Amino acid sequence: MKTTQIVLASRPKGVPTVDNFRFEQLELPDTQAGEVRLKPMYYSVDPYMRGRMNDVKSYAPPYKIDKPIYGMVVANVTESKSDKFKSGDTVVGQLPWQQQITADSGLLKLIDKNVGSPSYYLDVLGMTGLTAYFGLIHICKPKAGETVVVSGAAGAVGLVVGQIAKIHGCRVVGIAGSDEKIKLLVKKYGFDKAINYKIHTDMENRVADACPSGVDIYFDNVGGEISDAVLGNLNVHARIALCGQISLYNCTEIPMGPRLQPILLTKSALMQGFLVSDYKTSFPEGMTQLAKWLKDDKLKGSETIFHGFDQLPAAFIGLFSGENTGKMMVEA
Amino acid sequence: MKTTQIVLASRPKGVPTVDNFRFEQLELPDTQAGEVRLKPMYYSVDPYMRGRMNDVKSYAPPYKIDKPIYGMVVANVTESKSDKFKSGDTVVGQLPWQQQITADSGLLKLIDKNVGSPSYYLDVLGMTGLTAYFGLIHICKPKAGETVVVSGAAGAVGLVVGQIAKIHGCRVVGIAGSDEKIKLLVKKYGFDKAINYKIHTDMENRVADACPSGVDIYFDNVGGEISDAVLGNLNVHARIALCGQISLYNCTEIPMGPRLQPILLTKSALMQGFLVSDYKTSFPEGMTQLAKWLKDDKLKGSETIFHGFDQLPAAFIGLFSGENTGKMMVEA
Repeated sequence: MKTTQIVLASRPKGVPTVDNFRFEQLELPDTQAGEVRLKPMYYSVDPYMRGRMNDVKSYAPPYKIDKPIYGMVVANVTESKSDKFKSGDTVVGQLPWQQQITADSGLLKLIDKNVGSPSYYLDVLGMTGLTAYFGLIHICKPKAGETVVVSGAAGAVGLVVGQIAKIHGCRVVGIAGSDEKIKLLVKKYGFDKAINYKIHTDMENRVADACPSGVDIYFDNVGGEISDAVLGNLNVHARIALCGQISLYNCTEIPMGPRLQPILLTKSALMQGFLVSDYKTSFPEGMTQLAKWLKDDKLKGSETIFHGFDQLPAAFIGLFSGENTGKMMVEA
Repeated sequence: MKTTQIVLASRPKGVPTVDNFRFEQLELPDTQAGEVRLKPMYYSVDPYMRGRMNDVKSYAPPYKIDKPIYGMVVANVTESKSDKFKSGDTVVGQLPWQQQITADSGLLKLIDKNVGSPSYYLDVLGMTGLTAYFGLIHICKPKAGETVVVSGAAGAVGLVVGQIAKIHGCRVVGIAGSDEKIKLLVKKYGFDKAINYKIHTDMENRVADACPSGVDIYFDNVGGEISDAVLGNLNVHARIALCGQISLYNCTEIPMGPRLQPILLTKSALMQGFLVSDYKTSFPEGMTQLAKWLKDDKLKGSETIFHGFDQLPAAFIGLFSGENTGKMMVEA
């Protein structure tokens, strides 16, 4: 049986283009004992995948040339030779970009379809939600009344961070890249203020205006000059969670900027880089809490969905120009 | 009764010079109830005092033009109108640079002369030792077998950090600015390796050579390019305590460098700025432990002493060219 996969055709220099991807036919291997056959419903595209396109050892291994791209996928089980799953189950796992997949059942997790749309398992109930949860709660330790700034606020993780910070009684200020997103943050997601960084040249003053009591917590998804502006407004004992640096992922040279250490020193501030996998042993705690907030309507999922397997490269590339609000994914 | 004081004559631009200080006669006020008359034994000079010479609000208030410089001083009580101290006691406190001082007894702490030289209260048993202790233990949490790099290793705090890290069973690598200091670190203070940054242009490789298992902990006293070299060698889950940035204190423009966030992010690393005063409530714990290590001969004090009150400006300025090994101070 034949299916289609998307492989890494070449490593991007700077912003990825469709030429870095290639669609290929492949012969799907027969399902063996312990394996399942899957038909994907939703494919996740995430900024961190840009790093895997470089030939650089990092926390996730680099993609190989002429081999398929991998990412989180929600899929239906169409055939099972595993005791773990039966046909008709819906699962999630790190899987290749293929239209049909033969997979080891040990790498998959069953989805509870009663909690919400299966797509939520790529969003608020997936790595996105857990990333927001652990970064904000475990690193930043928000207290009621504190001011939290989130960059990439209309992105997948940013939207969840802002909502969780509101649940904790914080003043929440989001930074995003269009007037439409800014409106959405305030009107739909309950942010107290939002700043469109694309129309301002004096971001440090803008952040100061939006944070009259200074910045206690900065949840950083983007890095670069936006972060410089926020860091100029830190309070003593501020906490900064480094979740992403999307503004720098396509840099071809080492990015330079003002040295941070003098600020962190004089403010007794903490800056912590993290990967959601650092909190693996606490995932059940995070999932339980996120599901409860969803059920209690305190947390909303938000998704930008491209339609069709062939749209995967475009959806991924779109992350870097901010085409998404909330979680970007592709429906098969 | 007349005495001499040293006032801030002008604010330095860049490295301070003797012209920024002025010696002045003053009429010493009579001792009032609750006050003591003091004759200083040792004056502390510390890098952080450079920040107070600028007219910038920071954690310590700026010195005022034509007003005396303040710093930690160990002094003998020569006259007491306080129940707290009697003539002949030795005390330590934040006091003006004067040859004789009238002071509120509430600002002073009695010294236990049985523990060691009174000068130790400016060194291992003073802010120096406490800074090393809390930065290393509370922020970096050293574990036996981990590799600890200390910059400014032959400076006051650096020497204590290295010794405490050795007590915890770590591999300790020091960075300092002369072959003489390097030798001392290894031979006298038990560092495993030491690097003279002044004779190397490839510091990142030098650090890599000295740390074959990578860097788990970086105790940063200096900042700038030395720190860039260390940060290029971090292990996953590394901890960085920002204690000082002496290489930048005399900068007249905002110093630029490679952006740190991508490194901290991919290494899930923690960077924490701190002031010893953040740990004020735990000072007794720190003092007890430091005194015990001193008594058990696991910790050595180390002092560079200039002689004579008139040497105070020179000793202070000497900090920025690394004239000291260990704690720099002036004996009256």
